[in-house]
Amino acid sequence: MSKTIKKVGVLTSGGDSPGMNAAIRSVVRTCAYHNIECVGIYRGYQGMIEGDFIEMGARSVHNIINKGGTILKSARSKEFRTPEGRKKAFDELTKVGVDALVIIGGDGSFTGAEIFNQEYGFPVMGIPGTIDNDIYGTSHTLGYDTALNTVVECIDKIRDTASSHNRLFFVEVMGRDAGHIALNAGIGGGAEEILIPEAELGLERLLESLQKSKATGKSSSIVVIAEGDKIGKNVFELKDFVEANLPEYDIRVSVLGHMQRGGAPSCYDRVLASRLGVKAVESLIEGKSNFMVGMLNDEVTLTPLLQAIKGESVIDRELLRVSEIMSI
Amino acid sequence: MSKTIKKVGVLTSGGDSPGMNAAIRSVVRTCAYHNIECVGIYRGYQGMIEGDFIEMGARSVHNIINKGGTILKSARSKEFRTPEGRKKAFDELTKVGVDALVIIGGDGSFTGAEIFNQEYGFPVMGIPGTIDNDIYGTSHTLGYDTALNTVVECIDKIRDTASSHNRLFFVEVMGRDAGHIALNAGIGGGAEEILIPEAELGLERLLESLQKSKATGKSSSIVVIAEGDKIGKNVFELKDFVEANLPEYDIRVSVLGHMQRGGAPSCYDRVLASRLGVKAVESLIEGKSNFMVGMLNDEVTLTPLLQAIKGESVIDRELLRVSEIMSI
Amino acid sequence: MSKTIKKVGVLTSGGDSPGMNAAIRSVVRTCAYHNIECVGIYRGYQGMIEGDFIEMGARSVHNIINKGGTILKSARSKEFRTPEGRKKAFDELTKVGVDALVIIGGDGSFTGAEIFNQEYGFPVMGIPGTIDNDIYGTSHTLGYDTALNTVVECIDKIRDTASSHNRLFFVEVMGRDAGHIALNAGIGGGAEEILIPEAELGLERLLESLQKSKATGKSSSIVVIAEGDKIGKNVFELKDFVEANLPEYDIRVSVLGHMQRGGAPSCYDRVLASRLGVKAVESLIEGKSNFMVGMLNDEVTLTPLLQAIKGESVIDRELLRVSEIMSI
Amino acid sequence: MSKTIKKVGVLTSGGDSPGMNAAIRSVVRTCAYHNIECVGIYRGYQGMIEGDFIEMGARSVHNIINKGGTILKSARSKEFRTPEGRKKAFDELTKVGVDALVIIGGDGSFTGAEIFNQEYGFPVMGIPGTIDNDIYGTSHTLGYDTALNTVVECIDKIRDTASSHNRLFFVEVMGRDAGHIALNAGIGGGAEEILIPEAELGLERLLESLQKSKATGKSSSIVVIAEGDKIGKNVFELKDFVEANLPEYDIRVSVLGHMQRGGAPSCYDRVLASRLGVKAVESLIEGKSNFMVGMLNDEVTLTPLLQAIKGESVIDRELLRVSEIMSI
Repeated sequence: MSKTIKKVGVLTSGGDSPGMNAAIRSVVRTCAYHNIECVGIYRGYQGMIEGDFIEMGARSVHNIINKGGTILKSARSKEFRTPEGRKKAFDELTKVGVDALVIIGGDGSFTGAEIFNQEYGFPVMGIPGTIDNDIYGTSHTLGYDTALNTVVECIDKIRDTASSHNRLFFVEVMGRDAGHIALNAGIGGGAEEILIPEAELGLERLLESLQKSKATGKSSSIVVIAEGDKIGKNVFELKDFVEANLPEYDIRVSVLGHMQRGGAPSCYDRVLASRLGVKAVESLIEGKSNFMVGMLNDEVTLTPLLQAIKGESVIDRELLRVSEIMSI
Repeated sequence: MSKTIKKVGVLTSGGDSPGMNAAIRSVVRTCAYHNIECVGIYRGYQGMIEGDFIEMGARSVHNIINKGGTILKSARSKEFRTPEGRKKAFDELTKVGVDALVIIGGDGSFTGAEIFNQEYGFPVMGIPGTIDNDIYGTSHTLGYDTALNTVVECIDKIRDTASSHNRLFFVEVMGRDAGHIALNAGIGGGAEEILIPEAELGLERLLESLQKSKATGKSSSIVVIAEGDKIGKNVFELKDFVEANLPEYDIRVSVLGHMQRGGAPSCYDRVLASRLGVKAVESLIEGKSNFMVGMLNDEVTLTPLLQAIKGESVIDRELLRVSEIMSI
Repeated sequence: MSKTIKKVGVLTSGGDSPGMNAAIRSVVRTCAYHNIECVGIYRGYQGMIEGDFIEMGARSVHNIINKGGTILKSARSKEFRTPEGRKKAFDELTKVGVDALVIIGGDGSFTGAEIFNQEYGFPVMGIPGTIDNDIYGTSHTLGYDTALNTVVECIDKIRDTASSHNRLFFVEVMGRDAGHIALNAGIGGGAEEILIPEAELGLERLLESLQKSKATGKSSSIVVIAEGDKIGKNVFELKDFVEANLPEYDIRVSVLGHMQRGGAPSCYDRVLASRLGVKAVESLIEGKSNFMVGMLNDEVTLTPLLQAIKGESVIDRELLRVSEIMSI
Repeated sequence: MSKTIKKVGVLTSGGDSPGMNAAIRSVVRTCAYHNIECVGIYRGYQGMIEGDFIEMGARSVHNIINKGGTILKSARSKEFRTPEGRKKAFDELTKVGVDALVIIGGDGSFTGAEIFNQEYGFPVMGIPGTIDNDIYGTSHTLGYDTALNTVVECIDKIRDTASSHNRLFFVEVMGRDAGHIALNAGIGGGAEEILIPEAELGLERLLESLQKSKATGKSSSIVVIAEGDKIGKNVFELKDFVEANLPEYDIRVSVLGHMQRGGAPSCYDRVLASRLGVKAVESLIEGKSNFMVGMLNDEVTLTPLLQAIKGESVIDRELLRVSEIMSI
């Protein structure tokens, strides 16, 4: 039988995303609701190693549900990848009586949690927090919905000026390994073409498509490109290539960058964070460990952490077809 | 065997919602993609009766994906509820060769479509468009996600001033029969209490809860109230009642009203609209009729129109628990 | 000769407004820049009486420039209106060595400062903070520009649905004694009529104007009404009156309420707050007292506090004409 | 005596900016108000040469006050720089009876108008439309205020993630010759350093300043850079240079690009556009010509077009000092 949980530690790790604060708030308040103590761990695993902790009660997460970023800050920790680092972390947790962990982060953060659990039998639960939505076992990661809205708002602004000048715009969005943002925000932004790592469009087809756009009377066009697209050129090289081949186009490049990671979370991300936080803490109380909480078929579910790490998050290929039809 | 569809009519009916334009665009472009003609019908069923039509091609829906409202306008039609009205409508459609309809609207609009289909064997498909999310057969209606974000942004602003003055705010949101908006935007906005038609909290429990809030050190509170809440008082009467019973509270009322129906659609609503429009048209092409297209378990699905009309959209009661935990 | 200032107290008083935090930040950092200590006073004059103080350094105002509300909170204080209250306040300030004050607030707050200065010779400087823009001696008060954008964004959303349904909307905005918000946001929102305290349009003329609107082919209309409008009816009574006289209109009412006081400040309000804070502190250092810092002709200026209190802020009547032309 | 104006042509030229549509609306409606005809000219001077005109009445500018971009589209015209091009333009205008012009654009567009006026005695009035605010004779150009808010919102989002990771961000904003956007949005965004063409900070001082930032305990920093900054390196080279000299910094670059030109105009820009449009048309009616309408000391004023072209728009150097104090 699992022993009773008395003090939960919570940390954010890896790239931050909107909704992390809402998830921290949910973890803290669910602990308070069940009369369990809660400790915030600053700067991810590095703060765990250094014992950079803070006691958190229901009032200490007041007015953070709507804030981007993470009040616990985030950092990458090389030291936690070593047995010595993890030993230090375990000692620091033991010192203050933390007996379970909620990890808010991505694949890399979960891997650390998984190893820590194996080595010390420490109860851990993961909450998927990354704008990229590239985690198996959940339809949405924290921050993904917000990032989509951020990108779409930027594209709307770019479209204003694109329409006024009959220009072609290349908009690069985040997504090193996964095209979720590009594909959805591309459809939402009314993009004429969407280039993502998962679907190798090829340079020839891009040129054809742009020529067709012009021929069908489109006065301006927006191409959304995931940063991890495998077309073999970065966005500036791509611009040069297209301009060399289609001299009638005057191309402008926009690299949206880190603003995609910030901003007040959308309502969806706030509700998601609240639900996942409740489930993570209550699962620990029930004696469960080594799971990721996620959303599948609009229900909160548990996926074994190892499966979440190893599984592959795939894009919905129906959306590729929708995108093609929409850009007729 | 169903005969081949040659010309699809599309209309918006009932209360408008963000994403209706994106759905019109999707219907029009899917028709173009399949070399089918498309006709826009102005002002819902009333325009159908009056033959207020416009031919629409792929370019005629340029730059509307991000616009609130509906370019086809909406109206309620008493005349369409009469056999004579529907006869006129059928004649007008026949005159221009429209042989199938896509109806974007809510329950009432679907009822009209269903009757029209029964009387004339006219192929119809429904797309659920209303911010209230009160339609059976889909997890999300068009505009619901956008409305949630609108409400949450308003609550964020109210919270700024609430925190500065230690005040209690009552925020009334839309939802005459369904508490979806209040429940989700309440959680997203960090409300201390949420009053919805589905869960009769009772006046006594509201007073208790507010007293407890004060006792636990909360300096300000926000109560979100669905307009259809069954507490037996409107929001201004409720304010008077609470102030009479808890004189330590200085209450301010905000009635968000129709702004909840407007604004640029969220990315989710744009993608949803695009997907549903494709499915509606392609289902007609496949010879299907009398269905509503919707989203269930993150997949586009068909629900018989009659079932969509008669079925009940229920709130996720887990959210009531999440809300209670979050407001500790 | 004035004695050297060593420790400045800063407080926010009256209704809060976006930009107050940016002004606090500016006061604190300008003090730090000049090696003067700074003390934050919570809850306005009431906190001053109760000695509710906090030492503030350059880092303690990190990341607040973009936050609505006021981290020092605001409150109205009856006690400060009595000589005994002011005596207590003076004693508390003396106890911690505060020898000058910056008051961020409106007319009422300045009156308190002025009396306090007269009674104790205490150096005071006022920064105009209110969304109403009803203060003499400055073209803009803190938060006014932000509130205008908030109102205009709400009207934009209402217009989406107004256009879709051919309806008439009455939108009530803040402004008990001054029509600045209604007049400017009305023009910015494309309102057909604007009712403000300063220009008594009269009920007859409103009816005429609405009839004319309909006659000239306008399909929907928005009327913006300042809450202090002297038409003799509240917005709901006005709705009843117009519907009784113009039954062809289906009117919806929106009362924007306190959300107008919140939200992230606009760039203008942040720069304004930064400039006024610098000037307030540096004026105190130069031995000046009893002034309000404001913006006139795009320059930061000083106006004697008494003049700022007694002077009248007038609307730009040219805008009434612009409004009339725009709504043709 | 000047002859009576009967038909005004209006065009947008050069880079588009938010508020241009509001200005078109104002010109059209002011014409309607004074019973003068109005013709919209598409694609700036190029459309003038090609006779690409549209008759515009009060209703044809319905619902555009809040739209970014320009419904008349904009383009640069080489042909209009030749006497032959201008002759064609004059002939086309004469053909439809246009006897006066309102030009919405920047310096380059005004130069064209000025020459056209000299050659043909054609009455012209300029309205300053550019986000850069680099035009003499007005405190604000159309779109400038909106662009400041756009940039500040982006910086707010970047700050969320900057704070979470203790990083240094370089944000490049528009402004090839003028630092207005960088300076104001830099102060508004709470930037630690602002690099603009007008103030040559020098690389050494930048390094010093960043080192000082770290020493004073700042955990993250944002540097705003005008694209026209004369530091001799583009933003990516600057990143490499700083990282080579201050290896403790992990720098991320954001190039905001054309989204700064789009978006719904702020309330200020809408009111400004409305006022300038009225003044432009009414000045033409009064027989004036060859002026730019602008805003000086919060009043609408006329500046001779030649003076507007040749004069220099200078930044407010007081703001450099404010920026320095704020980043202590």
